[in-house]
Amino acid sequence: MLNPTAAILIIGDEILSGRTRDSNMHYLSCELTKIGIDLQEARFIPDNAVKIIDDVRCLSSKYDYVFTSGGIGPTHDDITADCIAAAFETKISIREDAFKLLENYYSEQNIDFNSARQRMARIPKGAKLIDNPISVAPGFHLHNVFVMAGVPNIFQSMVQSILPLILNGKPVLSKSVRIPRGEGEIAVELRKIASEHKSVSIGSYPYNNKGNFGTNIVVRGINNEELDRVAEKLKSKLL
Amino acid sequence: MLNPTAAILIIGDEILSGRTRDSNMHYLSCELTKIGIDLQEARFIPDNAVKIIDDVRCLSSKYDYVFTSGGIGPTHDDITADCIAAAFETKISIREDAFKLLENYYSEQNIDFNSARQRMARIPKGAKLIDNPISVAPGFHLHNVFVMAGVPNIFQSMVQSILPLILNGKPVLSKSVRIPRGEGEIAVELRKIASEHKSVSIGSYPYNNKGNFGTNIVVRGINNEELDRVAEKLKSKLL
Repeated sequence: MLNPTAAILIIGDEILSGRTRDSNMHYLSCELTKIGIDLQEARFIPDNAVKIIDDVRCLSSKYDYVFTSGGIGPTHDDITADCIAAAFETKISIREDAFKLLENYYSEQNIDFNSARQRMARIPKGAKLIDNPISVAPGFHLHNVFVMAGVPNIFQSMVQSILPLILNGKPVLSKSVRIPRGEGEIAVELRKIASEHKSVSIGSYPYNNKGNFGTNIVVRGINNEELDRVAEKLKSKLL
Repeated sequence: MLNPTAAILIIGDEILSGRTRDSNMHYLSCELTKIGIDLQEARFIPDNAVKIIDDVRCLSSKYDYVFTSGGIGPTHDDITADCIAAAFETKISIREDAFKLLENYYSEQNIDFNSARQRMARIPKGAKLIDNPISVAPGFHLHNVFVMAGVPNIFQSMVQSILPLILNGKPVLSKSVRIPRGEGEIAVELRKIASEHKSVSIGSYPYNNKGNFGTNIVVRGINNEELDRVAEKLKSKLL
């Protein structure tokens, strides 16, 4: 059986303008690889309603899981929750359980629970909340889409709370073989080996260590013994 | 007149698996912002021919410029050039000028110019070459798509050589205003200011500096005087 597939949708003007360097994609890609979810695509788009709605529909229909990051805070540029509701043609309104969580949190700190903060309790109908142990305002999941905050430490804590809800695949294992020869020198033989072992993926990554060219070959698959066999073959043919 | 638009397509299994953290998107987004190109989307996809062809067609029709990174080396997983040719229904074959560049380069170093290395001279018909001052194997551009190497220092040098070929927009300027108050506290007033100044984009980015919550507000636009006016208004209303 094939592993479940996934896509990430990172929402926010600040990453496309270069102001902020994303870290959420890298974090999530590592977590998904560990549990055998096959991340097949990542998209970065601005805070633009048409794009968010189109991409949520497109990715949700193509992949088993979609994870979004960004746009669920209290300000005017936080439009993700409304767009998710629109993408699935469902209503969105203040939800009592989310409202109470936020009301308690701000009341304990003597902070005014004003209309902007109340907006963070607006959740599309039918969604389940995702815990936010850091600043309380919840994420949510609806159908196969998990909607999370963009602030990295909040995103990470939300990811940790949803991972147990996801149907895991077989963890994808990898072996690296370092060959102190340029890619171009080993490419013919490497192509042959790759064609003989189609159940693993073989990636080739050149390195240049102070003028010494070489190639890291990464073999990925779910069967550890096969990875060992391929790694041994790579060493015997290429080293 | 609106600024030209662009998308980036980053090709390679290694980034989606978390093995490598991308730096090319961040580099290019900063360079494009400087010269007034509006980067509206970035996609990361694996070394998969169907996806590369689909996305090149889709992005090329939606945006003024498309920049790709990855998949133009000598190994079996380097399929980008063939996919670009397929996307535009054009032929691909060894091109003489690219072949000679590579032949000279390897001959000078007494390195065998074997069939794998010769593959790097395969260029879609009608494309123009993009210089590679580091390891010679060229990128190319065809229609509105610029095809570049994934290795960061080569990618960066290729970007520098193509920037003069691109129709610049008006550089997008930005002003940041740091407000030592939480997003939720200023969101109502901020929404009002944003609605009064639709020709600039106003982004709101929370920070948490050792437990002190605050908000960086970034105003972006092409008219410096207007940015100053909006920044002054933000300070007078929110500080």
